[in-house]
Amino acid sequence: MKPERLASQLQFILEIDKLKEVLRMSLLLGSKRRENSAEHSWHLAMMALVLAEHANESVNLLHTLKLLLVHDIVEIDAGDTYAYDADGHAGKDIRERIAAKRIFGMLPSDQAEEMVALWEEYEGQKTPESQFALALDRLMPLMHNYHTGGVTWRENRVTRSQVVERMAPVSAGSDALAEVASAVVEQAVASGLLPPTWSERQGQPE
Amino acid sequence: MKPERLASQLQFILEIDKLKEVLRMSLLLGSKRRENSAEHSWHLAMMALVLAEHANESVNLLHTLKLLLVHDIVEIDAGDTYAYDADGHAGKDIRERIAAKRIFGMLPSDQAEEMVALWEEYEGQKTPESQFALALDRLMPLMHNYHTGGVTWRENRVTRSQVVERMAPVSAGSDALAEVASAVVEQAVASGLLPPTWSERQGQPE
Repeated sequence: MKPERLASQLQFILEIDKLKEVLRMSLLLGSKRRENSAEHSWHLAMMALVLAEHANESVNLLHTLKLLLVHDIVEIDAGDTYAYDADGHAGKDIRERIAAKRIFGMLPSDQAEEMVALWEEYEGQKTPESQFALALDRLMPLMHNYHTGGVTWRENRVTRSQVVERMAPVSAGSDALAEVASAVVEQAVASGLLPPTWSERQGQPE
Repeated sequence: MKPERLASQLQFILEIDKLKEVLRMSLLLGSKRRENSAEHSWHLAMMALVLAEHANESVNLLHTLKLLLVHDIVEIDAGDTYAYDADGHAGKDIRERIAAKRIFGMLPSDQAEEMVALWEEYEGQKTPESQFALALDRLMPLMHNYHTGGVTWRENRVTRSQVVERMAPVSAGSDALAEVASAVVEQAVASGLLPPTWSERQGQPE
């Protein structure tokens, strides 16, 4: 073992501390503050542990955990892009690719390659593990929004049809969780949290 | 699949959101705020992915990740006990055991049993995976303290010998990481961050 190998691994470990400072739109369920991407990644990993039996296809749990632990690290440079921010999504791919190269590039080359491959697999959405991981990543913010009174939907004038579209990929990973998502959306609509359209007056459903 | 099974799993997922509100003593490396136990758990899981090759014995990575993801969840009820708080450690075991029963008990019984077993294995420190996991859990706060100017050591008048004692279990999991820990301690001592004793005047090394 060359000492430089361990040294570069430790530098990477220190660098990714910054993911704890990347804020997402979701509020914590206690509504005290916005969620950050590091704690969100932990929460998704716990979901995978508990909910893996609901994946459509049998998934390799270790591989699913790796995808979830790694998938948001590029946000250290590229920032979190809000789900319903169309402008923010322009250029997201390039921003994130440059980020992946820099951040994972701090690791020894074999590990850098593995991390980039995990991130690309997650983005590519071709494997059962990446599809199940994405299902969790879509379902959790829906649950956060619903259980915090839909504040971020209201602030951003998000409509029912936008959320339905956002949840569409869940069924590729898990039909059972897609049913949960549908039920939560309908409860949110019935509670007036998620209207078909918003009036001009921000925050007031028509 | 009984619908109650999925419902109880989702309730557990919502419940553990609270780990994001359990604050630890460590500061983030950017020094802006204290770290919480959820993002800390993510960080340790990433360390396991990157550093597994340094474990003394070959470890099962999936099992190590499970231990790390789950090990702090009892803190939702029991709170985080600061490493150098002797009073806080009295009663910690009982507090955490009651917490484990309540929180993991929200899950279907097969999963509750698995989670309790993971937590007990981590606490028991008999397996290579639990020993390697603990090595990471001891090393990371040392690195956090060193790279944030030793603020929490100073605030709590922590001495070199206390930190050396705290790092003693690292070598059971990884001799390579124990060497890193020793080197960081010596750098901290040399930089005056970690004196042999503290004077009466809080925060002033003798």
